[in-house]
Amino acid sequence: MAQRKQGTLIIIGGHEDHEGDREILKEVASHISDGRLVLATVASHEPDGYLERYQASFADLGVTEISELYVEERDEAAKEEKLAGLDDVNAVFFSGGDQLRITSLIGDTPIYQRIHEIFQGGGVIAGTSAGASVMSDTMLVRGSNQTSFRIGDLSMAPGLGLLPNAIIDQHFAERGRIGRLIGAVSQNPRVLGIGIDEDTAIVVQGTRFRVIGSGAVYLVDAGAVSHSNIAEAAADEALSIYDLTLHVLSAGDGFDLETRRPSRAEPG
Amino acid sequence: MAQRKQGTLIIIGGHEDHEGDREILKEVASHISDGRLVLATVASHEPDGYLERYQASFADLGVTEISELYVEERDEAAKEEKLAGLDDVNAVFFSGGDQLRITSLIGDTPIYQRIHEIFQGGGVIAGTSAGASVMSDTMLVRGSNQTSFRIGDLSMAPGLGLLPNAIIDQHFAERGRIGRLIGAVSQNPRVLGIGIDEDTAIVVQGTRFRVIGSGAVYLVDAGAVSHSNIAEAAADEALSIYDLTLHVLSAGDGFDLETRRPSRAEPG
Repeated sequence: MAQRKQGTLIIIGGHEDHEGDREILKEVASHISDGRLVLATVASHEPDGYLERYQASFADLGVTEISELYVEERDEAAKEEKLAGLDDVNAVFFSGGDQLRITSLIGDTPIYQRIHEIFQGGGVIAGTSAGASVMSDTMLVRGSNQTSFRIGDLSMAPGLGLLPNAIIDQHFAERGRIGRLIGAVSQNPRVLGIGIDEDTAIVVQGTRFRVIGSGAVYLVDAGAVSHSNIAEAAADEALSIYDLTLHVLSAGDGFDLETRRPSRAEPG
Repeated sequence: MAQRKQGTLIIIGGHEDHEGDREILKEVASHISDGRLVLATVASHEPDGYLERYQASFADLGVTEISELYVEERDEAAKEEKLAGLDDVNAVFFSGGDQLRITSLIGDTPIYQRIHEIFQGGGVIAGTSAGASVMSDTMLVRGSNQTSFRIGDLSMAPGLGLLPNAIIDQHFAERGRIGRLIGAVSQNPRVLGIGIDEDTAIVVQGTRFRVIGSGAVYLVDAGAVSHSNIAEAAADEALSIYDLTLHVLSAGDGFDLETRRPSRAEPG
């Protein structure tokens, strides 16, 4: 497959460090040459203070011109003045909240088209927590923490579609989410499960990513699964699935999304 | 390998149901023909009420003669009257608490010898929570919940040694323990990781077990692992490990501990 011309995705498992060495924010900043970033706070019901926080954290990293993109209602996402806020922008950062707010408010709107264009044109799209989940074609929207997956726990919705053939989960170890990610990939092993810890991110370029940050990234690959009861068991029964492949990656590891093989990362 | 003559282990992930259909307690009762059970409450600092609770839950399941085994100090474990409590007993149930209390108080004592004899003679040894963890050669004694494993998180101790080549973890999905179980097996892939949810158990006979109860059992097999940083990375770094095999089993599944293959269970 030819190398795509698209840009960079920085997909963060939530709670990226803002006070210490800010490794993840530094990575975001390193992809921004003009100092401009749009902070999309659409996922949040109460985005007050988000802009100021990111402005403070990015100030000495060279990202000095941060503006906020927020819509309360879907019809705002078609307005000229909202779209104008994305003119000549090459970097968008989705903050956390509820991923369904992002997709239901801006999905299939001119804003969404513009964000795709920024990515296809070589820009950087970052997202943390809910902003991470929306990156994939299909996203997890609900699903319990700290429990094994039950057959009836379906909880997916169409995402923004920036990362194909994958499903992202965030706050991964911290909220005990391996059960629901396994449930998600059991439904169609075409989809690779990517569980990202807090203060941890994957930096996707082309068909490869590398891991940065303090935690781990879990890759759940159902490609070799020999049996599961997902299609047959009753809704309240616990999932049974044999022969999952699991990789746990940390800083310095890389992954090829086409071959589904981990490796020590090439310097990014 | 010839079928061993030993008895049955019933290894429970904690919080087995006492009020509803009591599936796990029924399984324990089905292995007891003389109505007698010794409840070993050694793991607990405050075992008051345990005996009465198990007496009430087992009363109509045919287990009518339940006595308590408790020691405050290690020297009690050699006393004649304590040992006499295990005379002609074919079933012992370890309740929860701190697994290090069990091994430090009765490890290598006459009581421990007697429990091994009961098992080798075809009896049943059950354990829940801490009482589950002690079953293996090496047991997890500490280790964080809801976090990815860090290289320095060593947290194992010698267990009772009833289940060889395995390491048990309990309250598994409920406490987000996949990270620490992966950490445990990364240290020596000879050991199979077995994570058991609450109200869920494995019933081990010979080299096979089957799963009962309402949750799931996670088998983490590091046999095919191609890379890990466990031996080299600094103590505060997150574990990196490639090519773990993961099976999620639920009621109706079985597992062969020699071939490490899951299968639909033969009726037990």
